[in-house]
Amino acid sequence: MKSEENDDIIMKAVSGGVTAARGFFASALKAGIKTSGNLDAGLIVSKTECSAAGAFTTNKVRASSVDWCEDALPGQSVRAVFCNSGNANACTGEQGSIDTCAIACSVAAAIDAAPKSVLIASTGVIGQFIPMNSVLPAITGLSRTLSPTGGTRFAQAIMTTDTRKKECAYEVYPGKKKYRIGGCAKGSGMIHPKMATMLAFVTTDAKINASLLDQVVKGVVDRTFNNLTVDGDTSTNDMVLVLANGLSGVSVKSLAHMARFESALFTVCNTLCRKIAEDGEGATKRVEVTVIGGKTYSDAKAAAKAIANSNLVKTALFGNDPNWGRILCAIGYSGADFSKEKLVVKLCGVPVCKNLRPVPFPVQKLREKLDRKVVAIDVDLGLGKHSAIAHTCDLTYDYIKINAEYHT
Amino acid sequence: MKSEENDDIIMKAVSGGVTAARGFFASALKAGIKTSGNLDAGLIVSKTECSAAGAFTTNKVRASSVDWCEDALPGQSVRAVFCNSGNANACTGEQGSIDTCAIACSVAAAIDAAPKSVLIASTGVIGQFIPMNSVLPAITGLSRTLSPTGGTRFAQAIMTTDTRKKECAYEVYPGKKKYRIGGCAKGSGMIHPKMATMLAFVTTDAKINASLLDQVVKGVVDRTFNNLTVDGDTSTNDMVLVLANGLSGVSVKSLAHMARFESALFTVCNTLCRKIAEDGEGATKRVEVTVIGGKTYSDAKAAAKAIANSNLVKTALFGNDPNWGRILCAIGYSGADFSKEKLVVKLCGVPVCKNLRPVPFPVQKLREKLDRKVVAIDVDLGLGKHSAIAHTCDLTYDYIKINAEYHT
Repeated sequence: MKSEENDDIIMKAVSGGVTAARGFFASALKAGIKTSGNLDAGLIVSKTECSAAGAFTTNKVRASSVDWCEDALPGQSVRAVFCNSGNANACTGEQGSIDTCAIACSVAAAIDAAPKSVLIASTGVIGQFIPMNSVLPAITGLSRTLSPTGGTRFAQAIMTTDTRKKECAYEVYPGKKKYRIGGCAKGSGMIHPKMATMLAFVTTDAKINASLLDQVVKGVVDRTFNNLTVDGDTSTNDMVLVLANGLSGVSVKSLAHMARFESALFTVCNTLCRKIAEDGEGATKRVEVTVIGGKTYSDAKAAAKAIANSNLVKTALFGNDPNWGRILCAIGYSGADFSKEKLVVKLCGVPVCKNLRPVPFPVQKLREKLDRKVVAIDVDLGLGKHSAIAHTCDLTYDYIKINAEYHT
Repeated sequence: MKSEENDDIIMKAVSGGVTAARGFFASALKAGIKTSGNLDAGLIVSKTECSAAGAFTTNKVRASSVDWCEDALPGQSVRAVFCNSGNANACTGEQGSIDTCAIACSVAAAIDAAPKSVLIASTGVIGQFIPMNSVLPAITGLSRTLSPTGGTRFAQAIMTTDTRKKECAYEVYPGKKKYRIGGCAKGSGMIHPKMATMLAFVTTDAKINASLLDQVVKGVVDRTFNNLTVDGDTSTNDMVLVLANGLSGVSVKSLAHMARFESALFTVCNTLCRKIAEDGEGATKRVEVTVIGGKTYSDAKAAAKAIANSNLVKTALFGNDPNWGRILCAIGYSGADFSKEKLVVKLCGVPVCKNLRPVPFPVQKLREKLDRKVVAIDVDLGLGKHSAIAHTCDLTYDYIKINAEYHT
């Protein structure tokens, strides 16, 4: 996996989120879906038709917006993404599908495009019909306020229990010409009833064929968002959408270009994962679990996710407790193969366990290291060359508070 | 699944736990392994050789006691079970195996039996050598204080963060003769470092061949202890051991007898699961998830376990919040097949969702029902005849407190 630090890729961070790339416009407004009165509807529109691809929740209970997008993708002629917060339009039956279609048709009419070129995402309360008398009038306003610097407002409009917006963008120089890629996301936890929904939108002005894009997106999502966990629940509405309009003139076709594009998309998705993890419900710290030495990628991923999903590991980290026994336990039940002789576990860079046996370490110093905003857990399975990263946060009193005390 | 309420089985609760059945003796004492000074070593001995079988943790990181027992079982000539709390003797390498063997040899010498006829279980801190200078002297004391009413003290000696002992016993009348079956268990959460270890020991004076017993035990454990979750972690030391000494003279051979014996063992294990769930770390209530209508048993089990494992469901129940959306979400990602037209979800007997759509219910009344010691979640997948039960508890501030604030 390449990253922005590697020499062979020239890439720098820029501002603008989903409107950093050429030809993308965005807007957001208060449609009145959220009772809080905050921004709750957003629109991204590309000047020209985009290749687009997505990755979708594996939950069998899924919102009609997920079905709508999965049906349309991968596609070559996507123009827009509409997203509302405050209502997930999930478990709403036939009426829910009709409403999703009506929103797409309304956006399509406002921007002069075909309904199937409009992607829809929703997040919020489930089991309640989406208030169309709030949504439909908002669409006109959204289409009239589209701006080449509207990315940040869009990122705000998709927030639910998120305490801050999550966006990033990069400029990539694969040769003489450059392109941009940027994105935004919302993290886990809904205000009402607080279903842990994850949505991410990525735009780029690179030119790439939709089926190629689809392949790259599925691969990158599997190594990033699919290894992100706040509480292990997979929502009815999760999705990642990637749009490429080609307006930079840089075409991603050769294997070298592909690798660089994949690396850039990985960087965007990995950065958004970090931002979601650090803003996990009730989190006091972000946790990054890196597993190397796996015989297969599946093994490395299974071990990383088991550690990141363990309530016992996550409460220990909240307590700044260097409890490596819980990490070892999670590796053990993950099903991943490991070498009993070569297994190494490090906490904040400090080896705490080798060959399934304790390594003496300065307990008080390590506790101080654990009492920081970012904690690294590093595991070497000692068997092969495969690696995986999982993102999570600690499990705290505030997680319980947010999820138990806020009633439906 | 038959239970003690069915007419075709005559069964009554009796006292005595693991010493309820004829010919079983137990003892317990303070060996000095726990720093608290509480009971921390226990012994069960049968007057005669037993058929024995067990079920063991699937964690690849496992204590030497697990290897020792799995190697010995199923077996026809088991005489005793030694169990200590306060030290798991896990992640202790070669020395750990030597210590386990030394304990077995020492018990064997004290009761005049073969070392391989002694089963060993340990629970407590991992990564520390077991203090043999405390354990070995205790064995003589244990063998000298064996008593036909010692089951309760044994049940106390295996406790860690458990707030109360967990035991039960039944008298079964399959015909004119009767036999007894009883057991005890310890639940999730270790004092130090609080690894979630589950141990259960069951004794019976029924007569049953070891390989038949093994088959019954595996089946019952799969439907009971394997569907019990406090925080989803599987420990390095989990095990269930069942000993049958045949002293009742009732032989379990015919299919009818087998079914009754299986039913009795299920009742013991299910009762112990309930006791463990209601004493889960930080729990304010026990939650029993019953899934019916599964196309396969795997489907019913997957749905029940996904609900029982969901932090979102468990925090909602702590908050007395009838948040059926989270239950639906867990069913959705469990992978279980369900009928969109026939799915029904009930909370405390009140239908809250049918056909993936909300059912109106009296919110305040249901909140009051949720504010009780036992909460039932009932799901009908609407596809077939298979059912499964999962046991859990709510997720509370005290869970975080126990697991974050108590340092290793």
